[in-house]
Amino acid sequence: MTFSIQNMASQAKQAANVVASLSTETKNRVLMTISANLQAHTTKILAANQLDMKAAKENGLSESMVDRLLLTEERIIDIAKAVEHIASLPDPVGLVTKTSRLPNGLNVSKQRIPLGVIAMIYESRPNVTVDAASLCFKAGNAVVLRGGKEALHSNLALADSIHQALEQFDIPLHAISLVPDPDREIMNELLTLNEEIDLLIPRGGENLIRHVSQNSRIPVIQHYKGVCHLYVDQFGDLTKALNILINGKTQRPGVCNALETLLVHKDVVKQFLPVVAATFAEKKVRVHACEQAIEYFDNADLATDLDYDAEYLALEIAIKVVDSYDEAVSHIQRFSSGHTEVIITQDISLANQFIRQINSAVVMVNASSRFSDGGELGLGAEIGISTSKLHAYGPMGLESLTTEKFVVLGDGHTRV
Amino acid sequence: MTFSIQNMASQAKQAANVVASLSTETKNRVLMTISANLQAHTTKILAANQLDMKAAKENGLSESMVDRLLLTEERIIDIAKAVEHIASLPDPVGLVTKTSRLPNGLNVSKQRIPLGVIAMIYESRPNVTVDAASLCFKAGNAVVLRGGKEALHSNLALADSIHQALEQFDIPLHAISLVPDPDREIMNELLTLNEEIDLLIPRGGENLIRHVSQNSRIPVIQHYKGVCHLYVDQFGDLTKALNILINGKTQRPGVCNALETLLVHKDVVKQFLPVVAATFAEKKVRVHACEQAIEYFDNADLATDLDYDAEYLALEIAIKVVDSYDEAVSHIQRFSSGHTEVIITQDISLANQFIRQINSAVVMVNASSRFSDGGELGLGAEIGISTSKLHAYGPMGLESLTTEKFVVLGDGHTRV
Repeated sequence: MTFSIQNMASQAKQAANVVASLSTETKNRVLMTISANLQAHTTKILAANQLDMKAAKENGLSESMVDRLLLTEERIIDIAKAVEHIASLPDPVGLVTKTSRLPNGLNVSKQRIPLGVIAMIYESRPNVTVDAASLCFKAGNAVVLRGGKEALHSNLALADSIHQALEQFDIPLHAISLVPDPDREIMNELLTLNEEIDLLIPRGGENLIRHVSQNSRIPVIQHYKGVCHLYVDQFGDLTKALNILINGKTQRPGVCNALETLLVHKDVVKQFLPVVAATFAEKKVRVHACEQAIEYFDNADLATDLDYDAEYLALEIAIKVVDSYDEAVSHIQRFSSGHTEVIITQDISLANQFIRQINSAVVMVNASSRFSDGGELGLGAEIGISTSKLHAYGPMGLESLTTEKFVVLGDGHTRV
Repeated sequence: MTFSIQNMASQAKQAANVVASLSTETKNRVLMTISANLQAHTTKILAANQLDMKAAKENGLSESMVDRLLLTEERIIDIAKAVEHIASLPDPVGLVTKTSRLPNGLNVSKQRIPLGVIAMIYESRPNVTVDAASLCFKAGNAVVLRGGKEALHSNLALADSIHQALEQFDIPLHAISLVPDPDREIMNELLTLNEEIDLLIPRGGENLIRHVSQNSRIPVIQHYKGVCHLYVDQFGDLTKALNILINGKTQRPGVCNALETLLVHKDVVKQFLPVVAATFAEKKVRVHACEQAIEYFDNADLATDLDYDAEYLALEIAIKVVDSYDEAVSHIQRFSSGHTEVIITQDISLANQFIRQINSAVVMVNASSRFSDGGELGLGAEIGISTSKLHAYGPMGLESLTTEKFVVLGDGHTRV
């Protein structure tokens, strides 16, 4: 019998009713069992991963992709610990978020419920399989996982550990479904199943996300890129500014919350840019500078709009001098990807103005953009990040995998 | 020069930045001025409406459509009063919904911000023009209004009153844009403008909503239909049940929160259905009954799955006897449109179980489904209702026209 994604999604939808009504205690016990299974099955999982690694090398995958694909005993322990951490997080399902008594005596409240079925489409990291499965499950949803073909053996082995845990608790295995066929047509069919699937979360490169967004009949969490700005104001503390700049650009340049553009107020240029230039030279950061900034750097290019629009994801940065706070805000509003923007200032009025005027998902004062992450912002864990404003905006934790219903308690109330 | 919807949407996007930063006080003053203008321009508005009415009669529009289209002095006063009411509602923008201090001293909060640009696509009621414009504006958004062609003259006259108010406060007129050309191709182009428009809210028949959902590149608030269920449990108070049934089915049968299906526990059938039959005969409610219920009614049809799936929007109802609470829940889960479901029971455990198990947008105990409305549930006003779980679920008030950003305050914090 050939595989049917439609059939898998329908069974996931049925399983979703079961997951939605599990108690927090049961869900946590399932998650702890998944963690134990992963560790107990390490040998099998590593053997499956070796098949993927061999194929990856034969197919000449890039070193960074091969590294993402690789599982080790240590990495499996990390994956298992992450599942235990998700078990320890508060359960959003059933939370009463608002409650009021209306003048006619009706009691109206809002209560958190799961979304239903979530589909994850991702690339080569096998840890996403376990991570996404655990988060969706903890929030009471069924999940359909479609990973990259280069990680298929690893994903199947991981799913096996998960399914053994579900089986032990008599939970339908389709509660956590892994698409066993990496065919692109099957993925495209998945995008059309809006009767079965409530939300689609793509995780990967901009091309994958655009493909999913443009072809989906299901609501999609969009996150194209992170062009994060740091604006150093005339009243900024330049020591804080330098630390935050270095942290944002060099600590982990390949991630979406790394800094991509530095804006500097003209009054602090002379004092600030020479120190920046010295540090960037030492850290080997390539600089694209505007006309007013370029003189401070050896080997800098002249920045163009393409630089201001770029997500370098590398030791590379665009630097621009602005004449005023307003010019900084205009620049950010024009080039922002809606991810994270930071102001460095000691001026409380200006800080408040920045918070009011900038409507990116995360707006920061005197802190590193690298904190723009679900774990760092106190969400406990992150399923993804949204740069479109619908449903969720910014880092998404368990709560973003739920919605709210109205609960109305009357005593025979009718409408007049 | 021909009209360009792309141009209109781009200008709306620019205007959205202005509206987002208006103070609550200014927004309220603009709304009060709109209300005053509408009343001052009554003669002009009624004259424009007469043009639409004349065309409607010439084109043989149905009586109910003509009635929806009609404006009178009294209706204009009602529309103006509704605008004043929106001015009196709390402003969701800027509301801090969560705040916490992390172990490292970072202060993280969430703050409500406008969505940006909202597009409304609707049919013949001219009051939607003013209502939607006021709600979107109060929530800090720009709005693109695309009403039905049969109401175009009325809508243009109403928009003129609105624009005079915007002008008086130096707000770009594109903050509230009315599409002046009812051409269907222009509407279809509007559906593709996902760079400019953040949210699409269609209001009208199921065909319009399906067309919009299927062709939109912009997130859409979906509300196909309301198949609301009333389940009368074996422990239900039958007097409450009868009142709530009559209220739900007959008070205003043409709306989405009217009842469409009655489920009755077998143990109360003999006591309850004869009273229901007598009342429905008197109120001329047409009945589609299951085999066990049909004997209680004169002239009832035998109900089929088509009946259980139907949104009659008329004095017509499906009635089914169930053997148990579980059968009632299964029936609702199968046929629910996700709108509103009601249980009549005095059993507190069963009431709680119903609240847990039914994940429709509104779940009620001992209250009429007719309360399932933004105004009645205390939201102040309603922009629409969502039966899909993403972003908003159920009646949507001002808050649903906003989203939340993260605000992070540090003091030189960098990530380790």
